Amino acid sequence: MLSNLDCFLSSALRLQTPSLLATTPESEYGSWVLASVLLTLVVVYAASKLGGELSKRLNLPPVLGELVGGVVVGVSALHLLVFPESGATAEGSAIMGLLQSLGGLDAAAITHIFESQSEVISVLAELGVIVLLFEIGLESDLRELSKVGSQAAIVAVVGVAAPFLLGTVGLVMLFHSPVIPAIFAGAALTATSIGITSKVLSELGHLKSTEGQIIVGAAVIDDVLGIIVLAVVASLAKTGEVDLLNVVYLILSASGFLLGSIFLGKFFNQSFVAIADKLQTRGALLIPAITFAFVMAFLANVIHLEAILGAFAAGLVLDETDKRKELDQQVMPVADLLVPIFFVTVGAKADLGVLNPAIAENRAGLVIAAFLITVAIVGKVVTGWAVFGKPGINRLAIGVGMIPRGEVGLVFAGIGSASGVLDKPLEAAIIMMVILTTFLAPPLLQLVLDEPEELSGEGTATLPAVD
Amino acid sequence: MLSNLDCFLSSALRLQTPSLLATTPESEYGSWVLASVLLTLVVVYAASKLGGELSKRLNLPPVLGELVGGVVVGVSALHLLVFPESGATAEGSAIMGLLQSLGGLDAAAITHIFESQSEVISVLAELGVIVLLFEIGLESDLRELSKVGSQAAIVAVVGVAAPFLLGTVGLVMLFHSPVIPAIFAGAALTATSIGITSKVLSELGHLKSTEGQIIVGAAVIDDVLGIIVLAVVASLAKTGEVDLLNVVYLILSASGFLLGSIFLGKFFNQSFVAIADKLQTRGALLIPAITFAFVMAFLANVIHLEAILGAFAAGLVLDETDKRKELDQQVMPVADLLVPIFFVTVGAKADLGVLNPAIAENRAGLVIAAFLITVAIVGKVVTGWAVFGKPGINRLAIGVGMIPRGEVGLVFAGIGSASGVLDKPLEAAIIMMVILTTFLAPPLLQLVLDEPEELSGEGTATLPAVD
Repeated sequence: MLSNLDCFLSSALRLQTPSLLATTPESEYGSWVLASVLLTLVVVYAASKLGGELSKRLNLPPVLGELVGGVVVGVSALHLLVFPESGATAEGSAIMGLLQSLGGLDAAAITHIFESQSEVISVLAELGVIVLLFEIGLESDLRELSKVGSQAAIVAVVGVAAPFLLGTVGLVMLFHSPVIPAIFAGAALTATSIGITSKVLSELGHLKSTEGQIIVGAAVIDDVLGIIVLAVVASLAKTGEVDLLNVVYLILSASGFLLGSIFLGKFFNQSFVAIADKLQTRGALLIPAITFAFVMAFLANVIHLEAILGAFAAGLVLDETDKRKELDQQVMPVADLLVPIFFVTVGAKADLGVLNPAIAENRAGLVIAAFLITVAIVGKVVTGWAVFGKPGINRLAIGVGMIPRGEVGLVFAGIGSASGVLDKPLEAAIIMMVILTTFLAPPLLQLVLDEPEELSGEGTATLPAVD
Repeated sequence: MLSNLDCFLSSALRLQTPSLLATTPESEYGSWVLASVLLTLVVVYAASKLGGELSKRLNLPPVLGELVGGVVVGVSALHLLVFPESGATAEGSAIMGLLQSLGGLDAAAITHIFESQSEVISVLAELGVIVLLFEIGLESDLRELSKVGSQAAIVAVVGVAAPFLLGTVGLVMLFHSPVIPAIFAGAALTATSIGITSKVLSELGHLKSTEGQIIVGAAVIDDVLGIIVLAVVASLAKTGEVDLLNVVYLILSASGFLLGSIFLGKFFNQSFVAIADKLQTRGALLIPAITFAFVMAFLANVIHLEAILGAFAAGLVLDETDKRKELDQQVMPVADLLVPIFFVTVGAKADLGVLNPAIAENRAGLVIAAFLITVAIVGKVVTGWAVFGKPGINRLAIGVGMIPRGEVGLVFAGIGSASGVLDKPLEAAIIMMVILTTFLAPPLLQLVLDEPEELSGEGTATLPAVD
């Protein structure tokens, strides 16, 4: 394209004409921050589409491809998408390197641009998972979800207790770990990633099945339990004691928030429809809906729950209105653009270097990791058999649906490492566990959902068909 | 709502339980940055919808209401949406004040959160105007636009030359300004804001009329001319000389980019359709289209043009495909969410304090401002009479469509002030000119477009109808 020529011409000429247009630092930075965000989004979309399409062609859930696409452009390979939280600097970012050579920017400028770009992409990724959970809420049926409420609660409780106990006791008995680090690692095994699980269910068309609704309901409850467990172990790591008041507060606020918003949502429904009907300008339906989702996400965030829980509750509430179908259609393109940023970012942040056996700490962590991964899978798979009163249900699918740990596990590893509770091998083992459960869950879930009954096996699974 | 109760309960309890969940600074900041962005977006959407709907009820273009809504929440009134570039600090932001009291955050944390939030909202606003121009490009017809190309070029050239000459000569002759500041102020009068003009045209359903296409075409050319003028006066202000090489480079790269992308776009069209047809995962059409728009915006940005020109060119190219209608529909919800962020931000950044006659500098600037505003309006309105070969065309509408100056004028004022060329009264006068032309253009344009012919007047204009 000629534009590429222009671009080369530009960088060649710029040597002689050093940024005349940008006399004030802000305006210069502003324009380069925008350029870096645009380029990063192009990389994100390319990675998500290449990965997603390839995955689809291999008959795997597209989200797995998006995660792998993220790994390829991220810290483990091409370094196009790296983040300061994981220790990356502007020099370590290939995109910043390109911009630096295009714009002749100095180190201070490029560091500022790198930090701003990382902040913007991180927030876009978070908005992505908020919109995803809002969409999942819209696709879920509150009545269906209430019907399986007690089953979901059992699955969530067993799915927190089993890996926690197995992990903690196992580490102490088998690996002679001290108790506090063992509790910490056990806790890191508890929280399921709603985002990955619900996206796979949605892609496989199983979101509205009884199994799907149990998994989503359990993942939501599990997320709340995970936050409570995190509060407990964080205070344990910090002060050696458990702050009971905080735990009680979290339990009350979480149940109050979820039940309260759904209960009051029934009344809000009508006002929402009335408002949307009165508006005459563009976005008459979408803007009130997204505003509601953002308000709920904000409230959930501020009371120390996760923002995505608020967005999910907002989706559930609006699902009950007769605007639902129209809203679904308008949220879809927004989700199409924002959700891939989340999954590619998750992949990009996963440092596969932790799996490299050439590094001593990784080798030491490898046996522990194998143990943690086994516990992580077994501890969640058993939850399917805790479901009662639903004969003929695909118990294995429910258990497998709870496997992916995602970002919450990484938060545990980060806090544990920062507070000095976890040694390097144990931290590496936790990260390996999170990465593997995240990447294994989509294909496993597809495998067991393709099966007609509780039996799993490789014999009948549909094989890849590349065209 | 119960969630509000939770929220108060939370802030009350937090006094006793200081953020146990957030041991690592990044994770704490990250969650608060997200909270501040969510809250800001809620404020932006509330302001845009309240303003837009009220404007619509008063029979005015909704975008005027969005701008005014921005003023209300911005630096001039409620201080909910303020930006560090305009000298605001975290203490001056009402949203940061709220978060500080909710989270018990210290000054360093709140400053970091404020800067990150401002950066994210600024980039979202820029993505908003990029998506807007992409949409305008999609709605414009390349063949129609080529037909009026020479008329648009004449309008653009006259619309740059007339206000520049009138302004510069007038300042020297009437106000005895020194030559360099006068040239600078004259230059600030040149560039039309494509965003505001095209949005109003689209809202009034006049985008595809001959007048509309001439205005949009002229605004695009005008934007390029404005960038060249900016480069000239910036180098004049810096070194006292004009860097001819840079001017030649800008003219070549701008024409090369716009013509080249449209010419090569004809070939790219087919590959685009072929790619979109092959994709099987979600966002099969939207993601390639937006990626193309972002690539073009990035290239335009990197060769020192404006990103929005690239997005407009991308829209023009994709308008030629048979996917156009489907694409229009999918881009719409995305634009609905992003575009208001741009207009509300423009309003929020407009500091109406500059109009306060109690401040001495403003009084001194007031007479100059009255002169600049007259020149700004007259200098653009005359452009309509430069159109040739189109008998019966609404010349007044074309001239009025070129009136709004928007952000480019503010960039001039900023650079002039930073380099010490402009004294305070002249800077204030330029800012007043930008604010007033921006806010006057939408109602004026509606007034003259409602008229059947070249005649304007208040007699026949439809009067406000409130329901």
